[in-house]
Amino acid sequence: MHYGYFNGTILPTDQIGVGVTDLSLLRGYGLFDYFLTYNGRPFQWDWYWERFRNSAAGLRLPLPMSQDETYAIVMDLVARTGHPDVAVRFVMTGGYSPDSISIGTPNLMILTEDIHPVPPVQYEQGIKVILDEYVREMAEVKTTDYKRVILKAEEIRAANALDILYHKDGEVSELSRSNFFIVKGDNLITPNRHILRGITRRTIIDLAQTDFQVEERPVLLSELYDADEAFTTSSTKQVLPITQIGELVVGDGRVGSRSRFLLERFNELVANW
Amino acid sequence: MHYGYFNGTILPTDQIGVGVTDLSLLRGYGLFDYFLTYNGRPFQWDWYWERFRNSAAGLRLPLPMSQDETYAIVMDLVARTGHPDVAVRFVMTGGYSPDSISIGTPNLMILTEDIHPVPPVQYEQGIKVILDEYVREMAEVKTTDYKRVILKAEEIRAANALDILYHKDGEVSELSRSNFFIVKGDNLITPNRHILRGITRRTIIDLAQTDFQVEERPVLLSELYDADEAFTTSSTKQVLPITQIGELVVGDGRVGSRSRFLLERFNELVANW
Repeated sequence: MHYGYFNGTILPTDQIGVGVTDLSLLRGYGLFDYFLTYNGRPFQWDWYWERFRNSAAGLRLPLPMSQDETYAIVMDLVARTGHPDVAVRFVMTGGYSPDSISIGTPNLMILTEDIHPVPPVQYEQGIKVILDEYVREMAEVKTTDYKRVILKAEEIRAANALDILYHKDGEVSELSRSNFFIVKGDNLITPNRHILRGITRRTIIDLAQTDFQVEERPVLLSELYDADEAFTTSSTKQVLPITQIGELVVGDGRVGSRSRFLLERFNELVANW
Repeated sequence: MHYGYFNGTILPTDQIGVGVTDLSLLRGYGLFDYFLTYNGRPFQWDWYWERFRNSAAGLRLPLPMSQDETYAIVMDLVARTGHPDVAVRFVMTGGYSPDSISIGTPNLMILTEDIHPVPPVQYEQGIKVILDEYVREMAEVKTTDYKRVILKAEEIRAANALDILYHKDGEVSELSRSNFFIVKGDNLITPNRHILRGITRRTIIDLAQTDFQVEERPVLLSELYDADEAFTTSSTKQVLPITQIGELVVGDGRVGSRSRFLLERFNELVANW
């Protein structure tokens, strides 16, 4: 059973009700963040908090609480689950609007959720994604706007794929909810614009420093053709190999040694978190 | 006091609570519509219903009720207000999501609200808008995504303006929540792409047929410079003159006779609705 915090109150999650004048319901004005706990501790908490604060600033919403106050609530909610490893979601909205368009006092929800782990077979075989010509508005702010991928769900399923890779003007950016990397020899290359700056992305870049030349820069669609490996990173996906992009087979079509290496480094890090 | 319908139940609006797994809260996946009643009857009901149905199809959400069932609920809610002239808002979302990303059974809210009429001085003097280089994603679907104008609120206020006029690649499209027209001699010209197809826009185009040459076509930014008049249309703004666009004074800077004429025709229509 999960509990959630909503504007000063903690309740079972299914008893929380948001009023209909909330600006995210009426006007899509909301942001969120999402992270996991390992061994009962929020992973990369300082980095997630920094990003949440940046997203709030991007939507010009004041934070209702300090980092420490928020941490205490997170730990309370995690303790109530009885599990050391859970997911935590922050949702913050423009608040109850007096006229359906002006910002009010932000509504903040903090929720624990079950983790939906990636099936092991996907790590063994890699996944397929399809290309989508699109770039997210305000990609650097973690807004709640995911209409695009939800509208594409049927197309993704029909292609036997699991996600989409956004590209525009010949440049790739990110998957719908995770970052994108390619490996060429000892070079680890990842887009640096039109993306949400993922915390797992940042962690992998850190972990890769001793064994790779890391390049954060615009990545061309054409570079996918001679990549040895590709993978995506997110809090739940960790380091998930991509072996097919549309009709393109990446490298030899099998999960590569560098992707495995980085996933192992990541797993070591979280095991001791 | 206002009541609202939510998934089969009618409650005072401030007692309606939407659960936190709703896909519009978590993922911005929602649409709406908004219309007024005159003399207790929904204005252009068939047209609004058609648009609502189209928006739902655009987000691939099934309608939970028929037009007649919905009409009965609207009339019930309007009767409860005790006023013949109120606003009615539909909000429909992707429903409660089992995994925070897949569509569930849509949540439908139908709400009555007070009308916020435009102050008379704005009809007498016209309003100022500022330009914004932007085009709405899926402009033709009435999604709930209005982040752009909410983020621009401070800039609009600082310019002593009341709204923004979107333009991109040299073409103007619409205001943040209303359509855009210019008048040149006897020509009434309005953009026909990258816009929400407003019901008031459609009504004005109908009313203008006998006295104007109506042109629905792409409109260039450069055409604003020699327009005689400009105005915006929406359910609450009706026909609201625009006398300044950024630093550009439209025509002679005063409300023009053609805008007044169309506002009068519109007022006659709704008086007898």
